[in-house]
Amino acid sequence: MPSLPDMTTPKVETLGGGTGVEQDPHVSDAALRAPFFDWLCRMGDNTLILSHRLSEWCGHGPALEEDIALANTALDLIGHTQMWLALAGEVEGQGRSADDLAYLRDVMTFRNVQLLELPNGDMARTTMRQFLFDAFHAALLEKLSGSTSLRVAGIAAKALKEVTYHLERSSDLVVRLGDGTEDSHARMQTTLDAFWPYTGEMFLGDDVDAAMAEAGIAPPPQDLRPEWDRVIREVLDEATLAIPERRADVHKGGKTGRHTEHLGYILAEMQFLQRAYPGASW
Amino acid sequence: MPSLPDMTTPKVETLGGGTGVEQDPHVSDAALRAPFFDWLCRMGDNTLILSHRLSEWCGHGPALEEDIALANTALDLIGHTQMWLALAGEVEGQGRSADDLAYLRDVMTFRNVQLLELPNGDMARTTMRQFLFDAFHAALLEKLSGSTSLRVAGIAAKALKEVTYHLERSSDLVVRLGDGTEDSHARMQTTLDAFWPYTGEMFLGDDVDAAMAEAGIAPPPQDLRPEWDRVIREVLDEATLAIPERRADVHKGGKTGRHTEHLGYILAEMQFLQRAYPGASW
Repeated sequence: MPSLPDMTTPKVETLGGGTGVEQDPHVSDAALRAPFFDWLCRMGDNTLILSHRLSEWCGHGPALEEDIALANTALDLIGHTQMWLALAGEVEGQGRSADDLAYLRDVMTFRNVQLLELPNGDMARTTMRQFLFDAFHAALLEKLSGSTSLRVAGIAAKALKEVTYHLERSSDLVVRLGDGTEDSHARMQTTLDAFWPYTGEMFLGDDVDAAMAEAGIAPPPQDLRPEWDRVIREVLDEATLAIPERRADVHKGGKTGRHTEHLGYILAEMQFLQRAYPGASW
Repeated sequence: MPSLPDMTTPKVETLGGGTGVEQDPHVSDAALRAPFFDWLCRMGDNTLILSHRLSEWCGHGPALEEDIALANTALDLIGHTQMWLALAGEVEGQGRSADDLAYLRDVMTFRNVQLLELPNGDMARTTMRQFLFDAFHAALLEKLSGSTSLRVAGIAAKALKEVTYHLERSSDLVVRLGDGTEDSHARMQTTLDAFWPYTGEMFLGDDVDAAMAEAGIAPPPQDLRPEWDRVIREVLDEATLAIPERRADVHKGGKTGRHTEHLGYILAEMQFLQRAYPGASW
């Protein structure tokens, strides 16, 4: 069980091994500003939206242990969000804080992949989605730990410790549910089939990714695919679940702001407080 | 089928049989201001929240005819809301428009009864809730048509024509579903039992109601009970549904701002546009 993250906004300048802005030229590189900002929003929005979905289980989990684990994972991801979006605001240079970016943007400027905004459904869906993303997330953070951006590398190293645990946990659950009862097996296979066409978006690269790769900040998303395939195959095999043969890149566009109808409902709920009481804090 | 209401905000000063503010001393009576405003919010919030619930069926109705009828009823109720809340803003005298009151208040200042904010559930629930409220609504508007406030009387007379049709339609559906298949009968009885403890709130009077009654603006809510009982009994008998023997006034407080958790989610969704884009119009 990971420890609860610090609920106060972390001092971003102390992250990345204590290196400040002056030691990471990427942060103030004007030529990189637009793609770097966009890429950081992708990182922060993925963790923010998945965190929100997990938080919906709070008080509704099927067992106390699960309820607490889901809430803890949500808190981990909110911690990552604070770091990614704070850095995004810094790179953008318009004075927007992590909170501003989380609570005052509308649907079309959100950059999370569509997979993460889909409704929770039952525990099969929640668990399978988590696993499919965790495997990608861990592979990505592993690479980012060696980023030429020391700030990115610092956040990634910190997040990776928690995400390694998330992946361990979701892998274990996928095996237990997939290789469980007839009903749990059927639900897991159904949900794997349903989510599969959304998984491809995680590995689609575009100009933003190319700029990040060229600067040595982040790997091209497609480079993460072999490691993801390896982990997925190993776990799904053990879970007696069949990898779908259908195309994986059918549903996409979240990374550039094209979202399902579900995101609007998430934001309406998530942003209500800041929208209704602008600037409110405690 | 009622005609679609005018989608533009009606000129409230022309309502009430063309009588203006100067001919209705209640509107500018400072001593009545607080209770009259509160009472008008109760009227407008009831129709606003039920309208929102009905609008959720738009595109999801079980048959095209039902889908359109539900949307039409929602539009009728939004029309009533515009009239009640516009008058409420006028009585309050703070310059708030009907839109301000609908989109910029938070949960605790909403005055609808709790029955109307409960989730739609299936068609049995939606139909039964509509019927239980329509019977109250029609009896209330009938009395209000004779209000000493000409503005109130004017709005009530206009709304009554539509609500008479709502009641006719929901009564008919209650009979068809109650005296229908075994499944539809069981669902209708279950939902009647579930909603019953919320119905009593419609007939509970308080200081606000007493002030309205004393001024001759509105009847004491408890006076509407016999007519409601008569209609309910007649329709439910024909529908072969049993009137519950449990207490009807268990769940209450909406009229004074104590709401179920559901209202917050309704407002988050309903108010998103105005909250995110203050002052936006088209």
